Amino acid sequence: MARIAIDMDNVMADIYSHYLSYYEASNGIKLDPQVLQGVPEGEILPDGAVRRFLLTPGFFRTAPVMPGSQEVIKALMEKYEVFIVSAAMEFPQSLREKLEWLHEHFPFISWHNIVLCGSKTIVNADIMIDDYDKNLRHFTGRQLLFTSPHNIHLTDYERVHNWEEVAAALEVEVPAARV
Amino acid sequence: MARIAIDMDNVMADIYSHYLSYYEASNGIKLDPQVLQGVPEGEILPDGAVRRFLLTPGFFRTAPVMPGSQEVIKALMEKYEVFIVSAAMEFPQSLREKLEWLHEHFPFISWHNIVLCGSKTIVNADIMIDDYDKNLRHFTGRQLLFTSPHNIHLTDYERVHNWEEVAAALEVEVPAARV
Repeated sequence: MARIAIDMDNVMADIYSHYLSYYEASNGIKLDPQVLQGVPEGEILPDGAVRRFLLTPGFFRTAPVMPGSQEVIKALMEKYEVFIVSAAMEFPQSLREKLEWLHEHFPFISWHNIVLCGSKTIVNADIMIDDYDKNLRHFTGRQLLFTSPHNIHLTDYERVHNWEEVAAALEVEVPAARV
Repeated sequence: MARIAIDMDNVMADIYSHYLSYYEASNGIKLDPQVLQGVPEGEILPDGAVRRFLLTPGFFRTAPVMPGSQEVIKALMEKYEVFIVSAAMEFPQSLREKLEWLHEHFPFISWHNIVLCGSKTIVNADIMIDDYDKNLRHFTGRQLLFTSPHNIHLTDYERVHNWEEVAAALEVEVPAARV
């Protein structure tokens, strides 16, 4: 059974929407998501707000789920060995929050199949779904770049714009009503 | 540069000594370490005390360092790419404690090289040092079984009894004064 390593931030969790919600809550300013296109993730908000939010207790725990991710991952698990692999070590407070977030929103994923790491070069899998070039670059299996505002200019990878496209690329069927 | 995946519990952290300290502190009974030889880890203490200690906040954070591990790992890092790989997902409270413990006792190991996981089948490395058959069994690289009371009967692996033997097996020199 082929193994897939699936990233969390910007792939399973909609971190960009969460940045904008936090920014609006703290500054009263509603940003147009369009202006974030092509900008590095750390620079989309002024005054280091992105890093500040990433270090805020509760930020990861309350992130919204990326539309379609639950249904498609459940379908993938019937055909593949699915591991969730998140680079979390830079933000120690995120470790438990990420685990609890997964238990809440993806209760069908066992703790056996969760990896919180620093560098993803250690990952042994056949397919990787990630929004970052730095994670996909060293991976020798099939690389799926999940579209995120920060990566729209990358052309080196097989691109998936959303979870419906992941399902199509990996040839699993998801009942239309579920996506 | 060859990559080594090093386990934490019973390899870098002396969890057995810690069980006995906790047991003595809570029950006033000092157990002879010799009686633990050959007994499965979960059964060395009565009344489910092992699992209870593993779930106790602070248990992992205060574990003693395995003698020689700091010096030998430092020496290994000059010759190998070292990753610390710990199966921690079963005990969510341990995640942050393990990271903080590493930062305190092994400050020379970067967060990039730390992996907290469930199953270790996902690990891509050339050498694995572990005290558990279940972790080494699926690993296709060189397997070093670190001696622990629960694994003394295993004969399938290249065995290292302590960190001095790890240094010898992996051909790194550690100044005598440092071990």
